[in-house]
Amino acid sequence: MIIEAVMNLILLFPGDSTDEGVVRLTGRRRDHMLAVHRAAVGDELTVGIAGGRIGKGRVRKLDDDAIELAIALDADPPPPLDLTLIVALPRPKVMNRVVAAVASLGIKRLFLINSWRVDKSYWKSPRLSPDNLRLQSILGLEQGRDTVMPAIELRRLFRPFVEEELPELTRETAALVAHPYAAEECPRDVRGPVTLAIGPEGGFIEQEIASLTRAGFRPVHLGSRIFRVETAVAALAGRLK
Amino acid sequence: MIIEAVMNLILLFPGDSTDEGVVRLTGRRRDHMLAVHRAAVGDELTVGIAGGRIGKGRVRKLDDDAIELAIALDADPPPPLDLTLIVALPRPKVMNRVVAAVASLGIKRLFLINSWRVDKSYWKSPRLSPDNLRLQSILGLEQGRDTVMPAIELRRLFRPFVEEELPELTRETAALVAHPYAAEECPRDVRGPVTLAIGPEGGFIEQEIASLTRAGFRPVHLGSRIFRVETAVAALAGRLK
Repeated sequence: MIIEAVMNLILLFPGDSTDEGVVRLTGRRRDHMLAVHRAAVGDELTVGIAGGRIGKGRVRKLDDDAIELAIALDADPPPPLDLTLIVALPRPKVMNRVVAAVASLGIKRLFLINSWRVDKSYWKSPRLSPDNLRLQSILGLEQGRDTVMPAIELRRLFRPFVEEELPELTRETAALVAHPYAAEECPRDVRGPVTLAIGPEGGFIEQEIASLTRAGFRPVHLGSRIFRVETAVAALAGRLK
Repeated sequence: MIIEAVMNLILLFPGDSTDEGVVRLTGRRRDHMLAVHRAAVGDELTVGIAGGRIGKGRVRKLDDDAIELAIALDADPPPPLDLTLIVALPRPKVMNRVVAAVASLGIKRLFLINSWRVDKSYWKSPRLSPDNLRLQSILGLEQGRDTVMPAIELRRLFRPFVEEELPELTRETAALVAHPYAAEECPRDVRGPVTLAIGPEGGFIEQEIASLTRAGFRPVHLGSRIFRVETAVAALAGRLK
């Protein structure tokens, strides 16, 4: 088994329930609990209901293909990050990591958009399937101990998105676009909602920065370094929120 | 070719020079310049001398196995991040990404240390070889457009490191250990040098937190979320510096 992220919370879905307060898990989650948590009867693991509360699951039965947990929920999931993220579609391999990082950080709305420097082939990747986006989101929530799935939306056309959707989306938010050549340094600890746009490898082109500026975005930099998109997302989230 | 990171700067070493101001590059760097930058004679690319200055390299010759660049250096590398990082040795696959992220963020001193929850097998990984650590550092510097290699040190024994080395290392720095169960929230925008410790998957155990506290570290949290180590490094670097 390749362990890509640790399941710090076992995310449960309506179909997992057998009886009141009991869930029966098979497949990936069972395998992970056995291999990584070395779960045994009587052990308690952190669980959460997708979109709902968090608590403990006590292992009450282990058999060849399933684990049964008796669950008790007593806490709310962590508060979401008040940040909408817009990212130029990354390379497919990177995209999985970006989606999982977004989910683990508590970002609840992600737009994957086109941009001049996005290779057209990236839009054909099977990793953009709803099933894969959902799986990567689940892996991120399990890592971050959250239960609330991020909404992920794809926008294959830059201009209609920026001109028609963004003005509404960014209303009453601090709208920032990360741009290594910006004059202004990225602010810190912004109160209230933020909309943050991050370009592709090589950056947004100047016309795109101009379009975003007309839509109300302020270009900001984090010094002259250029980060991988998942590093930029985490560094900016840590700085802004 | 698998592209793991983009070469936003081509890092040059003493052995690359042929003549005054001319370098001849083969192998990985040549392949990347052709495949990703689509370099042609006359093009200018950002270059930097390992440990030294940054500037431009103009392609003056392309042949079957090499690219020749005429270089002119006119800028200093970006300032380093004033942060020493101590990380419990991650899984080998994760470690490559951590080292590259550290280098891209401008962190210049990294200790990879043992901890109770570090699997002993990780210390046997060939990825801990000096050659691989150097390669991952180079990939991170090329991504981040920096030239100054981080110093990476391995410490297989937790206690001697914490009791004998850390007090000297952290003197006159803000020493923080990231710990999801800490009472204090991680501070922001710390002036002056920082020493930051990040535990393994599953965290440092309480005795380790106690040892670090005796060595002058303050446990701090970033909320109840648990991050992958590379996400934590970037989020904390973005927040602290």
